[in-house]
Amino acid sequence: MSDDALVIFTPSGKRGRVAKGTPVLAAARALGVDLDSVCGGRGICSKCQIAPGYGEFPKHGVTVGADALSPINAVEERYDRIRGLKEGRRLGCQACVMGDVVIDVPAESQVHKQVIRKSATERVMEMDPATRPLYVEVAEPSMHEPSGDLERLAAALESQWQIKGLQADLAVMARLQPVLRKGNWQVTAAVQEAGDGTAPRLVALFPGYREAPLYGLAIDLGSTTIAGHLVALDDGRVLASSGLMNPQIRFGEDLMSRVSYAMMNPGGAAEMTTAVRGALATLAEALATEAGIDAAAVVEAVIVCNPVMHHLLLGLDPVELGQAPFALATGHALNLAAAEIGLTPIAAGARAYLLPLIAGHVGADCAAVALSEAPETREDLSLIVDVGTNAEILLGNSTRVLACSSPTGPAFEGAQISSGQRAAPGAIERIEIDPVTKEPRFRIIGNAHWSDDPDFGTPTITGICGSGIIEAVAEMRLAGIVDPSGLIGSAEQVGTARCVPMGRTHEYVIHDASAEGGPRITVTQGDIRAIQLAKSALYAGARLLMDEMGVDKVDRVVLAGAFGAHISPKHAMVLGMIPDVPLAAVTSAGNAAGTGARMALCSVAARRGIEAQVRRIIKIETAIEPRFQEHFVAANAIPHATDPFPELTAVVTLPEVNFNAGGSGDGGGRRRRRG
Amino acid sequence: MSDDALVIFTPSGKRGRVAKGTPVLAAARALGVDLDSVCGGRGICSKCQIAPGYGEFPKHGVTVGADALSPINAVEERYDRIRGLKEGRRLGCQACVMGDVVIDVPAESQVHKQVIRKSATERVMEMDPATRPLYVEVAEPSMHEPSGDLERLAAALESQWQIKGLQADLAVMARLQPVLRKGNWQVTAAVQEAGDGTAPRLVALFPGYREAPLYGLAIDLGSTTIAGHLVALDDGRVLASSGLMNPQIRFGEDLMSRVSYAMMNPGGAAEMTTAVRGALATLAEALATEAGIDAAAVVEAVIVCNPVMHHLLLGLDPVELGQAPFALATGHALNLAAAEIGLTPIAAGARAYLLPLIAGHVGADCAAVALSEAPETREDLSLIVDVGTNAEILLGNSTRVLACSSPTGPAFEGAQISSGQRAAPGAIERIEIDPVTKEPRFRIIGNAHWSDDPDFGTPTITGICGSGIIEAVAEMRLAGIVDPSGLIGSAEQVGTARCVPMGRTHEYVIHDASAEGGPRITVTQGDIRAIQLAKSALYAGARLLMDEMGVDKVDRVVLAGAFGAHISPKHAMVLGMIPDVPLAAVTSAGNAAGTGARMALCSVAARRGIEAQVRRIIKIETAIEPRFQEHFVAANAIPHATDPFPELTAVVTLPEVNFNAGGSGDGGGRRRRRG
Repeated sequence: MSDDALVIFTPSGKRGRVAKGTPVLAAARALGVDLDSVCGGRGICSKCQIAPGYGEFPKHGVTVGADALSPINAVEERYDRIRGLKEGRRLGCQACVMGDVVIDVPAESQVHKQVIRKSATERVMEMDPATRPLYVEVAEPSMHEPSGDLERLAAALESQWQIKGLQADLAVMARLQPVLRKGNWQVTAAVQEAGDGTAPRLVALFPGYREAPLYGLAIDLGSTTIAGHLVALDDGRVLASSGLMNPQIRFGEDLMSRVSYAMMNPGGAAEMTTAVRGALATLAEALATEAGIDAAAVVEAVIVCNPVMHHLLLGLDPVELGQAPFALATGHALNLAAAEIGLTPIAAGARAYLLPLIAGHVGADCAAVALSEAPETREDLSLIVDVGTNAEILLGNSTRVLACSSPTGPAFEGAQISSGQRAAPGAIERIEIDPVTKEPRFRIIGNAHWSDDPDFGTPTITGICGSGIIEAVAEMRLAGIVDPSGLIGSAEQVGTARCVPMGRTHEYVIHDASAEGGPRITVTQGDIRAIQLAKSALYAGARLLMDEMGVDKVDRVVLAGAFGAHISPKHAMVLGMIPDVPLAAVTSAGNAAGTGARMALCSVAARRGIEAQVRRIIKIETAIEPRFQEHFVAANAIPHATDPFPELTAVVTLPEVNFNAGGSGDGGGRRRRRG
Repeated sequence: MSDDALVIFTPSGKRGRVAKGTPVLAAARALGVDLDSVCGGRGICSKCQIAPGYGEFPKHGVTVGADALSPINAVEERYDRIRGLKEGRRLGCQACVMGDVVIDVPAESQVHKQVIRKSATERVMEMDPATRPLYVEVAEPSMHEPSGDLERLAAALESQWQIKGLQADLAVMARLQPVLRKGNWQVTAAVQEAGDGTAPRLVALFPGYREAPLYGLAIDLGSTTIAGHLVALDDGRVLASSGLMNPQIRFGEDLMSRVSYAMMNPGGAAEMTTAVRGALATLAEALATEAGIDAAAVVEAVIVCNPVMHHLLLGLDPVELGQAPFALATGHALNLAAAEIGLTPIAAGARAYLLPLIAGHVGADCAAVALSEAPETREDLSLIVDVGTNAEILLGNSTRVLACSSPTGPAFEGAQISSGQRAAPGAIERIEIDPVTKEPRFRIIGNAHWSDDPDFGTPTITGICGSGIIEAVAEMRLAGIVDPSGLIGSAEQVGTARCVPMGRTHEYVIHDASAEGGPRITVTQGDIRAIQLAKSALYAGARLLMDEMGVDKVDRVVLAGAFGAHISPKHAMVLGMIPDVPLAAVTSAGNAAGTGARMALCSVAARRGIEAQVRRIIKIETAIEPRFQEHFVAANAIPHATDPFPELTAVVTLPEVNFNAGGSGDGGGRRRRRG
């Protein structure tokens, strides 16, 4: 009888011979099979559950006998009694190989689990978090062999988990001794292996075996809002999501006002740094509370943001980002102590990872979109537009990916629009205008009914939000209320009393409650001009990248950003925001930047991947490309002065109107500063 | 004619052939010759000065012609005109090899200069500082190739100085952009290469070429006083020395009172951390002011201290150090951001290096003594005693080195002595007692004359300091005023009215100004007992190490510590503080801990050396060695109950007296707690 036995693991197919009596966990490690364990094989954590197969396996050429594994032992019996072990499951650290055997590793027992991302594209993501919980038993101190508690913990991690050269911040060292004693020298160490060449780092320490997972934060730090997800680092599930306003708004609505504030006010940048760090701390606290978990178990944070927010968060003066050549202080990915950037409510040794910036105007948020949408993995040509105060634009396929930023200004967010407001209950978010009667109907946020539905009731209508103004202008163009140059016709020209004079121009009245003291909501000629400026900038940026790519059309358009989720593809195309493609080829990626942040949170491979990809991305600076200005001017018309929109005109009719009878049009092509 | 030429460098003797036209600096680098340069060969820094030799060199077998180097060029002429170039010197970066040549590299042009340490042993130390100034020219930012300023600086350091993988703290990044612009993209970078496997680190940045050297601080952080030196990192010279009281004294005089304070008061440890960090900042500021240099050019600090001070400085609760098994949180050497431990007045990115601790009671200060005195480099057996509140004792030679700590208590510092005081003007520091008349004469701090000298005048005499009390007790023993058991005789027994009753015992009056309302300075029986306890602990510790080493005698005794400098070897031996050796074999090493700190500041090799040596040192814990107690009891007698002191008795006579006629001796062997 042979002293060793054949072990075949599924689904990996890895196989090899091990000495009889070898625990399955040890066999898995020896063969490089991905089998989880937090307790290091002590029968505590149950993460190493496996499902042995018995009988004939012609595919593998083995017959597995009933005694191929050692009998269920006392540890497994106790575990089954107390916590329950699924039918057919064994603990990999207890069951020993006694004969040829086929062993299935269920998905939940793999460290590198495949998880489905909740996004439009539903791509699969592999769990590969930088920080793992590792249970260790640490030698007690001895007067005969004096050594530090940290050194003995490091020795235990090296001998039990092959963690070499452990480092720890002072904040973690300061908590070490009481935890080791509370756990009676048995502790669960949260160890970060960043995979970037730096030493493994002790991030947190918990007494005894820690049952619950470790957690991380994925934070999308926008100029206006800060959104965060609290994520379990064992399987990537989102336990809480929350957001708050960026308190820097009081220093300036848009990015350039904040850069100006920093330039004009000594200590201004530091004030903004303090404000945003305080907000991150508040958000972290709120997320932990919402998820009902101990914030001290949050060991990682990933932050994505634009370059100005990035510099302000790090305490770097953003002044250089306000003027050519828009030099970043640093653009590489960063792995910092989270406490350094104010994330103090979480584990004292928690780490913060910032994705790389792409260029002076193209931030880590765009890198996160690139990570989430991965245009480089596709043969077809994707145009990905992240619409915010600035639009960040990616164009590419498996051959190469280009990126630029375009200064759209805040009009798409409802700012600088006469009846504009932020997306909030009472804001008009959808609108339709009858092309014959020119009468509008609309929906408001917080009300499921259209305004012409009796169930609409009599809600307070407060204004019009970003997606509402886009639909309004596009519907006005479709209904012949606005001509291709963007001019609103008079009541006579259009044939509706809703077009009323306003100085030398006209406005279109959507809703008028002024008789009852309520609001009067209109689209003015100025609003149309603001939207034209914004959409021209967006389109010009996309065209510039298409020029660089040497193409006249793209295969698909992805609208990213929270706002992207609310834009109707048809209306976006009527406006000429995006190039002409079949409507079905326009999709929303939701908050792709947030998704990218979650991916980087859950996977070291994703971090290394996007770092390498950002180096490969070809950066185009719109400010120095003369063709940008040409594209911008040509894109002023709705949808466009020269580019044909065959896919669009196949599904909608664009009335041929021209209201500029007297030649009094107000022009409108002024460039807007960035922000 | 050959295309290459033979270059021979002295004093290294390195030689090799280089292509004609090669600058001498490049030839030196190619041949691994230690020739300094800060500007990287741009003719700015003049650090690469060399002295070519001409004529016959039979030893090297070459003849050097007058045209062996290229003629003096415009750069050298300008340099000589403006700053002066010594006769026969050339700039190594400008002079090119044109024929066989012998080139001397003067000491000041070597990076790794040999410098003589100012200490009793006058050992040679090699300059090998962790942080060097490197002049670089950095590429300007371009919108066509967006990248961070830090990334371009790192690229310049890599291409011009082979610095790979530069890291920088946020505090340094925050200062990067203005300095690069102020220097017009020419900067001097202070880069730390710690030599411990971590990445090179940008510590500070200066616009243009920095003429002045970088600086470092060597700090000996004692429980009572904090002493610091400001050192130039190019040649190791001390530019300023200063000290201040450790403000933690208000939380407890000795270490154990401070540990108790931390245990009894929530937040007490943090209070003490804040206090000591504030003191370090004050000291750094004072040293920079005294030296007349910009504190922002101080880029390194080395700190040595005992384990309790170490933990309190780092913000680690010292509670475990107050009880067996005296477990350290961490004992390894640390390389930290100086700002993390409150050293903020210096360069924002400055680094702090803490030497390793040896054991729970044997600190980094003892490690620094071990570095400075290096007993492992000698064949003879050294006993090195660092006398402070605790005594730290090293015993060893080239075979092995042992270490322990012994709880002497503060009596040697004049504390818990009836007329005791800290060393300050007015304190008796030296004393002699006439063996016939039993009359004393003494000297006080701040007065060069003995008290029986007419020039002594009528100064205020305030008390007796640590070295004074040791001399007083030893002189009392030599004069037959105290017997071997430590008992002070009565006036009748001794034959002097200076012995006066005090309860059931006696005291010896050194100085009595009480009639004029001045102090009355005496040595009481209690003082003798306190000194006996302290000296017994010290001797017992030394004996314990000798037992472990298997020896009965040592070859030499080194007294370290500021206090050690003031102890007279004869008196120390009369007391039986130290084992019997020829008096000439007792030397003072001065502030050896401070010297060790300076060595670690100036040399990465010294850091690695002491880290390795500390791992090799055999640690003996006195608290768990039963023989310690035996040695302690036997050492109570003056000089010793059983050990002979032949070397001592060859030079002094110890009167055979016994004052315990009535058997009323007060014993005295109570162990004192550590502290």
